[in-house]
Amino acid sequence: MIKYNISDFPVSGECFSVTYSLSGDEKEALLKAEDICLEQTVEFPPDLLPEKLRNTVAGKIKSFEKSAEGIFKTLIEFPVETSAFEFTQFLNVLFGNISFKPGIQLESFELPEGLLKFFRGPRFGIEGLRKVLSIPKRPLLCTTLKPMGLSSKNLYGLAYQFALGGIDIIKDDHGLTNQPFSPFEERVKLCSKAVAKANKETGLKSIYVPNITSPLREIEKRVNLAKEAGAGGLLISPSLTGFDTMKNLAEDDFISLPLLSHPAFQGSFVLSRSGISHYALFGQIVRLAGADVTIYPNFGGRFSSSREECKNIILGCSVPMGHIKNIFPCPGGGMTFENIPDMFKFYGTDVIYLVGGGLFRHSDNLTENCRYFRNMVDNV
Amino acid sequence: MIKYNISDFPVSGECFSVTYSLSGDEKEALLKAEDICLEQTVEFPPDLLPEKLRNTVAGKIKSFEKSAEGIFKTLIEFPVETSAFEFTQFLNVLFGNISFKPGIQLESFELPEGLLKFFRGPRFGIEGLRKVLSIPKRPLLCTTLKPMGLSSKNLYGLAYQFALGGIDIIKDDHGLTNQPFSPFEERVKLCSKAVAKANKETGLKSIYVPNITSPLREIEKRVNLAKEAGAGGLLISPSLTGFDTMKNLAEDDFISLPLLSHPAFQGSFVLSRSGISHYALFGQIVRLAGADVTIYPNFGGRFSSSREECKNIILGCSVPMGHIKNIFPCPGGGMTFENIPDMFKFYGTDVIYLVGGGLFRHSDNLTENCRYFRNMVDNV
Repeated sequence: MIKYNISDFPVSGECFSVTYSLSGDEKEALLKAEDICLEQTVEFPPDLLPEKLRNTVAGKIKSFEKSAEGIFKTLIEFPVETSAFEFTQFLNVLFGNISFKPGIQLESFELPEGLLKFFRGPRFGIEGLRKVLSIPKRPLLCTTLKPMGLSSKNLYGLAYQFALGGIDIIKDDHGLTNQPFSPFEERVKLCSKAVAKANKETGLKSIYVPNITSPLREIEKRVNLAKEAGAGGLLISPSLTGFDTMKNLAEDDFISLPLLSHPAFQGSFVLSRSGISHYALFGQIVRLAGADVTIYPNFGGRFSSSREECKNIILGCSVPMGHIKNIFPCPGGGMTFENIPDMFKFYGTDVIYLVGGGLFRHSDNLTENCRYFRNMVDNV
Repeated sequence: MIKYNISDFPVSGECFSVTYSLSGDEKEALLKAEDICLEQTVEFPPDLLPEKLRNTVAGKIKSFEKSAEGIFKTLIEFPVETSAFEFTQFLNVLFGNISFKPGIQLESFELPEGLLKFFRGPRFGIEGLRKVLSIPKRPLLCTTLKPMGLSSKNLYGLAYQFALGGIDIIKDDHGLTNQPFSPFEERVKLCSKAVAKANKETGLKSIYVPNITSPLREIEKRVNLAKEAGAGGLLISPSLTGFDTMKNLAEDDFISLPLLSHPAFQGSFVLSRSGISHYALFGQIVRLAGADVTIYPNFGGRFSSSREECKNIILGCSVPMGHIKNIFPCPGGGMTFENIPDMFKFYGTDVIYLVGGGLFRHSDNLTENCRYFRNMVDNV
């Protein structure tokens, strides 16, 4: 056995706590909980691990109980120092290696002030975005510029009609980046103009939100182009760029624009009981990453989300997390006007209705379709 | 119905092709295949989609056949322009929104030269890394500096002993970033020194590989510190930083160091038949991202990987992909000396054996344990 001289040891005793759901019988689940404590920190064979490290650096099981047939919940505390006070390493402690171990689901987490202070969180949040748009109470309306393949001129036309019809947030489809059909710079200039023109005519305050998801070297350039053109927010898919990239944008005082988080490439985390809960992924983690709006697939559309999962996202968007602001849930994915009354009952007013292709269906007058949509929401 | 004036249309006809596995009966699986063609490109209701876009921008099913009971394989072609020739958007077309749809697995893909040329790929690859280390034929040996909580001085001691014992690649544990136990700069300076000192004594060419996974603003700083200190490679977890960040590092002529990719936070993609295959994720995608070494959980250790999955990683590391070099599979996760003979039979010589905690078990003389390990490999 190797001997270490482990002396001065900078562990404050401050911890963050994480709740995991574990599948299996009681014995199996308890083994999983014990394993998480080591796998996510010291990553060392338990019999070879110096006692001092087990007592300080390793995670500790604070509770363990049955929550359903074959499911156990455990709350594990990790010293804040294991996270190195970095978002990337924090995510690694939450779910890095254990993402490979079946039957472990990251449910939720709680951060003490000593760790929270390293996260600025959403710049606007629900209240701030409502101020930007001058909409004190009602649900917000959002739609998407698509299909991919349209020219920037086509998209200009759409953006203008959407804004004229009173859609609050007009965003790029998350798949529009810099395709030859509609290069980023050209699109962003035209669509910003379209929305500004419509706003002038309506007196409303619609915003255009371009998609800046792109290779690292391009992001800064595209953000600057978006700012210059007068975009009112930015769309980003954090799983494609890295979550920390979104955090950087959120914390940049020069940018200072509302951020919409798109969930592309994240489905595998939430499709089974091995993975991350909707609550943690689309609520808590997206908030830490600084998004003001979390887009996700709603129930009742073309994806497989359940009402319960969506309820959990609402909770994750609004659970108290120190100074980290509450954010808007933005359920989408095949929504039509028919979904709205049910969504209103389910979500209340602090929600953004994202209707994309569905806006094209009601009649062949797009602006009128938008007005109809807007009218539904003004009257809910 | 909304009318578009779709005129000049920059689609070259060049396509990349993607193979997906689809669960369900034939009718369900075919619907999934048709859905992928639209969801990943135009993302628009099929009945509202302009014919011209369906014929040009949307994906196209090139083959569809039963591959096992309840499993169908389909090959879908996407116009290269949908990717915008960007890694982030390419990943989005491969698996962005459909990651939320159960029963779809991304199996593999093939890129034409018109898209491949936007990827430099691994700088070293198998051949290049063998040259750097002056090891023409045998499997390489890798170990990990851990457990987290040790001081930089402790880690110096370990690194020295590992190198003295003939371990080729001595890497940080992927959880070591910039914790107060062992701050990055201090650790990297000391461990680089330790390995250099041992190399001088042995005449060998071991390298120290620090973990530079960190927030975006820190990465450049840490890479520079690593370069200055004389590190021989860099470890990065692309799922935490974004895959494109790894690609940037790989393509940077100033950095010019071998890159090791760690799979932390990626398990959910491969735990079920909804997700990404081991072949595509740990083979093809990691290669496009420019890693020279792909680390992943081996069979027979503390993770749940199967032999078949690992075989597929070997194939993904070596399938011809134009100018993109072949890379080393680096199976780890609870490996001990006992696994080596079996691993040799399975992997042959183009492999890196990653033994971490297991190196501490053989005897209480770490250097001797390393020599024993090295001897096993010299004699396989």
